[in-house]
Amino acid sequence: MLNEHATYLLHPIGIVRSVLIKPEDAPRQGFLGAPEAWIEIYPQYRDALQGVNVNDEVTVLTWFHLSDRSILKVHPRSDPSRPLTGVFATRAPVRPNPIGLHRVTVLEIVPARGIRVQPLEAVDGTPVIDIKAVLREAKD
Amino acid sequence: MLNEHATYLLHPIGIVRSVLIKPEDAPRQGFLGAPEAWIEIYPQYRDALQGVNVNDEVTVLTWFHLSDRSILKVHPRSDPSRPLTGVFATRAPVRPNPIGLHRVTVLEIVPARGIRVQPLEAVDGTPVIDIKAVLREAKD
Repeated sequence: MLNEHATYLLHPIGIVRSVLIKPEDAPRQGFLGAPEAWIEIYPQYRDALQGVNVNDEVTVLTWFHLSDRSILKVHPRSDPSRPLTGVFATRAPVRPNPIGLHRVTVLEIVPARGIRVQPLEAVDGTPVIDIKAVLREAKD
Repeated sequence: MLNEHATYLLHPIGIVRSVLIKPEDAPRQGFLGAPEAWIEIYPQYRDALQGVNVNDEVTVLTWFHLSDRSILKVHPRSDPSRPLTGVFATRAPVRPNPIGLHRVTVLEIVPARGIRVQPLEAVDGTPVIDIKAVLREAKD
């Protein structure tokens, strides 16, 4: 039954391979100087890459597996002088379902491995849960 | 252990209430004439709305609970004359983790209920899994 106690199971489709190791080394947003990274796609999902091309912009969805899911309010940008704000009014990685959205450019495609992208502010080992085309008209 | 067999559990934070009842009535993208809708937030997550304001643009993440998760290739826009394309090169609702991204404008906030937004191309009863601020610089 569809109600607030229903839950859904995410199956990662791949994993981030990055020079970023510790969350505190990651910029808060990709456009703040994040490095390139590989998105290694697990073999059973690689057919879903067909039609992704170099220079495409795509939205990568990650799962911030290190995040505290119980936090509902944060000081934006981790700045204690900013008033506590609900996480739905922010992009903080702590949130009930810690999904990250990353707009990146595809730099390289290796069908037996995955795609190289930039910029990506997720640490090495972050699970990847989806990749979506960016629609010019959709703005996201 | 972090590997391709790890799974993650999503807890819906709310639910869509919309005049759209059947998936075939929903436009393919919000900007293609989708209606306004209520996002009813479950009581335990309502504190996370603090700081969301009327006229804000936010990205709503939904879970397409009716989608087939086993499909890796589709004919874009359901047009059989278009060649089969990997779902990661599209925004088709069928995908291994059927998460929808919806950029909407907040029309009304009722703290004891949720937010009214537009346009939203998700049917009534669709689980909502996150709401994120839109950063002007992030383009998503």
